[in-house]
Amino acid sequence: MTSERAAPPTISEVAAEAGVGRSTAARTLGGYGYVSPELRERVLAAAERIGYRANALARSMSTGVSHTIGVIVADIANPFFGGVVRGISDAARARGFDTLVVSTHEALDEEVAATDLLIDKRVDGLVVASAALDAASAAHLERARGHGIPVVLVDRAVPGLDLDAVVIDNREATREAVARLIGEGHRRIGFVWGPPVDERPRRRRDLVDAAARDLWTDGERLQGYLDALDDEGLAFDAELVMVGPKTEQRAELEVGRMLALPEPPTALFCTETDAMTGSLRALRTAGLRVARDVSLIGFDDSSWAAVIEPPLTMIEQPMLALGTRAAELLFATIDGERERTELHTLETRYIARASVAPPAQPARVE
Amino acid sequence: MTSERAAPPTISEVAAEAGVGRSTAARTLGGYGYVSPELRERVLAAAERIGYRANALARSMSTGVSHTIGVIVADIANPFFGGVVRGISDAARARGFDTLVVSTHEALDEEVAATDLLIDKRVDGLVVASAALDAASAAHLERARGHGIPVVLVDRAVPGLDLDAVVIDNREATREAVARLIGEGHRRIGFVWGPPVDERPRRRRDLVDAAARDLWTDGERLQGYLDALDDEGLAFDAELVMVGPKTEQRAELEVGRMLALPEPPTALFCTETDAMTGSLRALRTAGLRVARDVSLIGFDDSSWAAVIEPPLTMIEQPMLALGTRAAELLFATIDGERERTELHTLETRYIARASVAPPAQPARVE
Repeated sequence: MTSERAAPPTISEVAAEAGVGRSTAARTLGGYGYVSPELRERVLAAAERIGYRANALARSMSTGVSHTIGVIVADIANPFFGGVVRGISDAARARGFDTLVVSTHEALDEEVAATDLLIDKRVDGLVVASAALDAASAAHLERARGHGIPVVLVDRAVPGLDLDAVVIDNREATREAVARLIGEGHRRIGFVWGPPVDERPRRRRDLVDAAARDLWTDGERLQGYLDALDDEGLAFDAELVMVGPKTEQRAELEVGRMLALPEPPTALFCTETDAMTGSLRALRTAGLRVARDVSLIGFDDSSWAAVIEPPLTMIEQPMLALGTRAAELLFATIDGERERTELHTLETRYIARASVAPPAQPARVE
Repeated sequence: MTSERAAPPTISEVAAEAGVGRSTAARTLGGYGYVSPELRERVLAAAERIGYRANALARSMSTGVSHTIGVIVADIANPFFGGVVRGISDAARARGFDTLVVSTHEALDEEVAATDLLIDKRVDGLVVASAALDAASAAHLERARGHGIPVVLVDRAVPGLDLDAVVIDNREATREAVARLIGEGHRRIGFVWGPPVDERPRRRRDLVDAAARDLWTDGERLQGYLDALDDEGLAFDAELVMVGPKTEQRAELEVGRMLALPEPPTALFCTETDAMTGSLRALRTAGLRVARDVSLIGFDDSSWAAVIEPPLTMIEQPMLALGTRAAELLFATIDGERERTELHTLETRYIARASVAPPAQPARVE
């Protein structure tokens, strides 16, 4: 997926105008590496003539680049974001850049404050896993760009926002996993977790609306679940979708409720680690065994998942690659090499272990 | 434990000299909150008369405080440090301060660069989980103090370094856990993991020397293991201590080796999450069951540990409290309220689940 915007002059055009190599132009305009005074002057004059990124240029000429990038993530205590940050900082380090991280606890106001802080600390660019649900609530990211600071989104796209984003295909990864459960013979499949609404939407269209207002990743996963049901001609049942706060405790409660239904689920799809551990707690309480009684697939592989009995089938996200790819895009933008924004989608991996089996008979809590 | 240093004038002494309340002096000297121009002048004059912290004072008068603290941790992808950072940033936020985080991948040179970066970004203080093993390799932290930037260590003390530190009692927590295993009847107890040396020390004194050169937390845990053996009069056996790189793969290999000994361990003490998952992999490969065949205790509780079958007995570290306490100490230092450095030790919690049982008979891999 690609969205276009009016193309500002590129670094290559500056290089052509100045009659120098692209890397010389990039070094001069990026403020890194050695460039002779004579070439430097030619590049800057050419950049001015063709109107190359006046903001960033003014900044690099007046203050020099800081060789620091900023990273804003929703929750640094989540190992997923820990891996993403590691990927970003490794790539930055290879480029001679330092990385400053701010964690926002999934709160948009903290993200806004973090953006202003990092602008103030003169970072050269930002990678953001944003809590913003739409373009209207992402004015702070536009503000960063207004300061000549490029922004790349990671993990989460923000619909309607014209920024580079590096994500996984949450919808397709979920569709495939749920299709595998259906392929094993499951017809009643629980979805843990769903939109954080208080009241369970009865109608499918209300659920889809709620998902569209949810965090992008979670909304996409729910769509993938619905896609798989549609593909196989299975009916949607609102009772099989968790709603409410996204916590391990709530997941345990909701799965316990599902297991007590007249027609309980024979399989569960868990969209997060806490959704998985909450589900496992509920199964334990109900005296049910993974695979034998209820099949399980989870998102975000963990070293724990492989040592559980039975080992859990998981969708692995390329955490490091999400980070390094986002950093590479950011540096390409800092170098003036990008002409339009893009949505980059990285592959996930389905790791088949032993938590999926055909449904023996309807699992039921007596 | 407390170590003293020459006491500089405190904020209370400035307040007394100026004839104002302590909070007025703190606000003036800390550069936060409203103070009337007249009172502000009296406080600053008094501070100058009695020689209050010339560095920090000059800094706050010339540039204003930045209301930002820096945090340097060894590995942000480790959920333990994620929790510590969350504790720090929550406490900072309550005080109106932002938090910038840098992760150093356990590399001292990255820690030095991170310190210089955060000094350059004019943070008002630093909380550091240092990779420095002794005072000689911690000159960068002294440098920060030279810039008037107070430093508090978290999770890891650095022997010989005169800085505040907030830690847990790794040695006592380990001693207690191993004593419980001995109390259950275990006599052969494996220790996963130990010093990162290539060759297994044969003599106890060489092992202790290697532990003293190891990361502080890990060295303390090994000491606690030896304390428990000593208390119960059990012989030390070098074959029961893992050596080599601290990775899940190495733990799996080393535990596999221990299980193949003529007298294999009947219990394992695991000092980290990866040591635990590596041990669980080795047990699975050997066809041995947790508790029934080999008892297990681990460090760093996780939501996964409670949903494993059997649920794992773990030592829980107060991650958030480590962070908030370190931040509180830092702010007290910024306010000029501290007169000497201290080592603050927080309590751990032993969570008894179901992975410890008496040894049925010596576990053996045939």
